[in-house]
Order: sequence, then structure tokens, then C-alpha cells
Amino acid sequence: MAALELCAENGYSKVTIEAIAARAGVSKKTIYRWWPTKGAVLLDAVTEQVVSDTTFPDTGDIDVDLCTHIGSLVKVFTAPVAGAAYTGILAELLHDEQLAKAVNEELVIPRVALVYERMRRAQEQGQLPLDIDLPLAVEMLYGPLYYRHALGRPLHEPQRIEELVAYVMRGLRASASS
Amino acid sequence: MAALELCAENGYSKVTIEAIAARAGVSKKTIYRWWPTKGAVLLDAVTEQVVSDTTFPDTGDIDVDLCTHIGSLVKVFTAPVAGAAYTGILAELLHDEQLAKAVNEELVIPRVALVYERMRRAQEQGQLPLDIDLPLAVEMLYGPLYYRHALGRPLHEPQRIEELVAYVMRGLRASASS
Repeated sequence: MAALELCAENGYSKVTIEAIAARAGVSKKTIYRWWPTKGAVLLDAVTEQVVSDTTFPDTGDIDVDLCTHIGSLVKVFTAPVAGAAYTGILAELLHDEQLAKAVNEELVIPRVALVYERMRRAQEQGQLPLDIDLPLAVEMLYGPLYYRHALGRPLHEPQRIEELVAYVMRGLRASASS
Repeated sequence: MAALELCAENGYSKVTIEAIAARAGVSKKTIYRWWPTKGAVLLDAVTEQVVSDTTFPDTGDIDVDLCTHIGSLVKVFTAPVAGAAYTGILAELLHDEQLAKAVNEELVIPRVALVYERMRRAQEQGQLPLDIDLPLAVEMLYGPLYYRHALGRPLHEPQRIEELVAYVMRGLRASASS
């Protein structure tokens, strides 16, 4: 998509609505009809790519599937094109409430809903206790990635994701037996 | 401090080295002698305030002390002056590797070292198992705050922090008995 290409070529901060319009072969007015800001254009492009790239797996083993899905978030952050755009969006949303709202509503909340859905299936199958706090579980599982990304650190290797999932799952399973 | 005042008055993006120098009554050259960028000036100011505001408590109860310390990070993020500056720094470091390095070295790593120190004391006192993975524990405890902050969401209420600490501690304690 034109906007993502530009972002990869020139960096997020240098992308303009004008350049996106020119690359897409449409007028600025056409872009503004659908998106209020360049952040919103790029968010749509990233969302489309992320959603099509990362459906939630179901192998029947919730621990394995969480590792795969968390690993897919690492891939989003580090992808040469979508990752640079998402990083730019995350920087911008810290000063732009509208964009923050859009990121949550269009990208994060729908993705987290898939995690809840998969975890509920694991509960039905007896792999997780019924009384666990799903939102807290999601924050413990996905928070560490955002923590490292927010601080510009290298993200988790697959081995480290397995250790993280094992710890969180142990806490969730211990909660029922205690 | 001049730089933090300016940030609170005008917003991070409008602060310039020129304005900081004028407010402090020194030349631009003097500022540049000590700091490479405005991000670095503001980081020093935030670090000074955060470090003086948040020593790590030791009441003898590790769970309580972690809740207090995590609560103090919520206060940093939401403080009218230092919080706005820290948010600006976090946005900028996503595009500025030097600033990212400085944030980790000057602010985050020393703060995390205090968490490790306090957790080791809890281990010596038998409040935590000896074989736990401290870096992973820190990411599970502090990651959720960065997750919410990175997505522009309201941060955790004290009650929610207690629930988070309880979950993580249960996982850490379960790891030894399993």
C-alpha cells in the first residue's frame, strides 16, 4: 500500500498526506475524505496487514498457541515496513488522543478479543481454570513486549516468550488450586 | 527546573534548547556543553525528580512494597510536570537511539536495580523462592503499566495494582513448589 511504502522509504516523520495522495494517484481531498490524519491512514494500512497476517492459532494447546501469537506481535514490531509504521503511530498517539482511540478500537481491542476467545476455549477444555482474570492475564502476557518496545530494547526471543508464558500460566493455574 | 517548567507550560514538542537556555539565564552554548539534545535535558530533569521521589520502600512485606513502588510509577506517568516530559521523551526515543540508550542507562536500569535489590532481600527472608527469574518478574510487574501508557489508556488504580502483584507473586511462588 502506498502509505506503508512511503513510510518504509523515508521514515514515518517524513510521510505527508500529499505524498500518500501522489503515490496512490489520487487527490489530497480524496485522502482527507476517508482519513483525518496521516496517522489514521497508516493505522488502517498496518491493521489490514496485521489482521491478515495473524489470526489466532488453535492447535489444542493454549500455551503453545499463546507463544505463537505473542511471537507474531514481535514480528509486527520488527517487520521492516509495518513495524516502522506501527512504531511511528505509537510515538504519535502519545500526543494525539484521537489516534490513540483509533489504535485501541481498530487494532488492539479486536486482537485482544481473539486472545480472550481462545482462552475461553481453553477454559472449556479444562486447560485453564474458570475463575481467572483474563484482562490481567493479557496485560501480563503482552505487557512485557510493549515495555521493551517503549524503551527501545530488543524484543523477546522465542525461548524467552516460552518462559514468560510458562510463568503466567503457572500463576493462573495456581490461582484456582489455592 | 527551567526545562520541566517549559514542558508543562507549552507541551514537549514546543520546547527548544533556545527557550531552555533563555529561561535558565544561560547561553545555548552552555546547554549544548552538557546535553546533546532537548530530550537529554528533559531526561536529566525527570530522572532527578523521579529518583528523589521514589526510593524503594521496605516495610518487610515484599508484596506491599511492590504495590507502593508500582504505584509510584503511575504517579510519574500522571504527574502534571514530570509526566508530560516523560511521555514526550518516550515518544521521542522511538526515533532516537541515543535517547533510548540514555533513558535505559540513566533512569530505567537504576530503578530496576532497586527492584532486584528489594526482591533479593525478600528471598533472603524467605518471602520469595530463591530460583525465580527476576528480570521476567520485573517485566510482568512493570510491563502492564508501559502497555497501557503506550496505548494511551488510563493507568492502573491501586486496587488493580494489588491484583497484578498478587497474580505475579502467586506464579513466582508456585514455580518453586512445582
